[in-house]
Amino acid sequence: MKKISILGSTGSIGTQALEIITQFPKEFKVIGLTTNTKIEILEKQIKAFNPEAVAVMDGEKADLLKKKVDINVFAGLDGIKKIASLENSDTVVSSLLGSIGVEPTLEAIKKKKNIALANKETLVTAGQIVMKEAKKNDISIMPIDSEHSAIFQCLVGEDISNVNKIILTCSGGAFKNYTKDQLEKATAKDALKHPTWNMGAKITIDSATLMNKGFEVIEAHWLYNMPYEKIEVIMHPQSIIHSMVEFKDTSIKAQLGYPDMRIPIQYALTYPKRLKNALPNLDFFKNNNLTFKEINHDLFPCLSYAYEAGKTSGTLPAVMNAANEVAVASFLQDKIKFLDIPKLIKRLIDEHKLIKNPDIDEILEVDKSTKEKAKKIIENNQY
Amino acid sequence: MKKISILGSTGSIGTQALEIITQFPKEFKVIGLTTNTKIEILEKQIKAFNPEAVAVMDGEKADLLKKKVDINVFAGLDGIKKIASLENSDTVVSSLLGSIGVEPTLEAIKKKKNIALANKETLVTAGQIVMKEAKKNDISIMPIDSEHSAIFQCLVGEDISNVNKIILTCSGGAFKNYTKDQLEKATAKDALKHPTWNMGAKITIDSATLMNKGFEVIEAHWLYNMPYEKIEVIMHPQSIIHSMVEFKDTSIKAQLGYPDMRIPIQYALTYPKRLKNALPNLDFFKNNNLTFKEINHDLFPCLSYAYEAGKTSGTLPAVMNAANEVAVASFLQDKIKFLDIPKLIKRLIDEHKLIKNPDIDEILEVDKSTKEKAKKIIENNQY
Repeated sequence: MKKISILGSTGSIGTQALEIITQFPKEFKVIGLTTNTKIEILEKQIKAFNPEAVAVMDGEKADLLKKKVDINVFAGLDGIKKIASLENSDTVVSSLLGSIGVEPTLEAIKKKKNIALANKETLVTAGQIVMKEAKKNDISIMPIDSEHSAIFQCLVGEDISNVNKIILTCSGGAFKNYTKDQLEKATAKDALKHPTWNMGAKITIDSATLMNKGFEVIEAHWLYNMPYEKIEVIMHPQSIIHSMVEFKDTSIKAQLGYPDMRIPIQYALTYPKRLKNALPNLDFFKNNNLTFKEINHDLFPCLSYAYEAGKTSGTLPAVMNAANEVAVASFLQDKIKFLDIPKLIKRLIDEHKLIKNPDIDEILEVDKSTKEKAKKIIENNQY
Repeated sequence: MKKISILGSTGSIGTQALEIITQFPKEFKVIGLTTNTKIEILEKQIKAFNPEAVAVMDGEKADLLKKKVDINVFAGLDGIKKIASLENSDTVVSSLLGSIGVEPTLEAIKKKKNIALANKETLVTAGQIVMKEAKKNDISIMPIDSEHSAIFQCLVGEDISNVNKIILTCSGGAFKNYTKDQLEKATAKDALKHPTWNMGAKITIDSATLMNKGFEVIEAHWLYNMPYEKIEVIMHPQSIIHSMVEFKDTSIKAQLGYPDMRIPIQYALTYPKRLKNALPNLDFFKNNNLTFKEINHDLFPCLSYAYEAGKTSGTLPAVMNAANEVAVASFLQDKIKFLDIPKLIKRLIDEHKLIKNPDIDEILEVDKSTKEKAKKIIENNQY
């Protein structure tokens, strides 16, 4: 039985993880849960899963919840770190949104918890530190997203030294068929009609810019210790092949399925077991045409920025991520245009003074200062 | 270093196996070779690979070769069995054509040689006996064909009990788009224009009737101990996805590559290693459209016959195979029509008196008598 804490249990990944835990009561026990502000949902989760303790990021909301439940309710980032390190848990699902997820995830690793990782920023901004701690504490990091789960599955039983390259597939996002003119006028509303995956607003915009795929390239680099030259991205609009691994002998392995996050979440939680679930089996006769296209890097430069930032390493990926976080939030509020997102990222990358081997505090400081700078640029219309 | 004997070294699979052995001289030593009649090619192979001994099926040709080389030259089926059991070999490539391959392969297994298996008849006609002997002698059977190699690769590191089903892909053969009227008039010449795989005449016709896929269903049953209900065949005309495995959690793994037999041959010989070769890597932008179709069982009934024969087991698969062998040979000589192939097989299956648990002699006897009967039916135009 795995003893699980979920950081971000009221979000999209968190609620789907609990859905899976509900299906397999013999496999899991919930130890801790956290939310940012959604205490009503958390209260229901407490009743359903009977955790030892919970945390609420928002202090006032934490106080409100304390009056309603008779378990420990911690508050703020320190509270979330407490849930990340509860003694009775052995596995932490890291599904916080944004760079706020980095510290609690690192805390969990230091307390020797295995990680089911959905928070992209953890590896994007602090990959070197995180992987070092993971190795030192002898814990495993299981990816919770379809691409890295696919790669993990293709690598099971294989020797990593036999890998020729990793092929990340990419739906292409909402604007994959847009011209430059169309992209200039594209709105948040347009982007939120994502063709294949049903996701949150932030990641949907990141898919439309291909920044999300850029994050995944950096994550793949850290998770599988793969040089950037051996990570390729190809567009596969149907999102049925979730990613692939090409081996030295030219043989390629791929993992396929419906674009449903419950498959990689379940795999991350149950591995090395595979358990029968109630999801539909892939119907090849209804998905009878799998296509591939090259990425247009001129129209979607964020992917190239991610390769650059990843190769440069140090604090640069954190800058890229922070700039993107502010840019996307502003785009969602119609404060900037779609093509301003890469522009803003590029400017902040170009202006950054690199710290080559930062510690976690330096990374978090760069994250903070970059966000402030980005906001100022947007306020002053200087992007 | 693997010490290899090749049964059928002058055929398509045998020569490609030697091509791979040439590429990796540190990995392999050739111990024995055999041919049916092609002593000129065998003589060259003797010079190039310096085996301990060889065998020639044809007695007169064996005598001719003896005069030209100064190593042991054995003759006939007994000679081939001797090569199959040479003490210094640890691995036997079984790439003889037809049911003649069964006895030598079984002999090799009894002498505790690992088998790289291309000869389909070994498992189709005598799967139960062969797998029992393989287990008893603690040897491995590595498949040499693209479909079973794909399945093997998808299963590496996975627990077989987690498999929901095996999905064998099928190019559809030369006549995949033919109507019934067109099939009635189809000639051997038409069939030999196989769309994706470059193979021998017999297997090309077997592909056109889907009998070949039927054989593969039976082989998959034995190789992976998989009930027939869990083996599915879908048409994939591009032959890029070589087969797939669906797991309990709805996740599917697939193996992809160019339709080139050297990939599965190399994997069978080098496993668990994967070695860099000179083959081209798959170009997804030139193979950017992978499609799937349902099989038309009415037009191509041989696949259903194979499921039936496999489920019934006993001597029935041997009957099916023997009937097919004669029917295809006759079709290649324009003695019967394309649609007479399934007709003849069906008749011989229907008329067979099943032996439920045959020994190997009974299987070989049924093979022989069915072939005689099939020939007589064809001679008398009674199919």
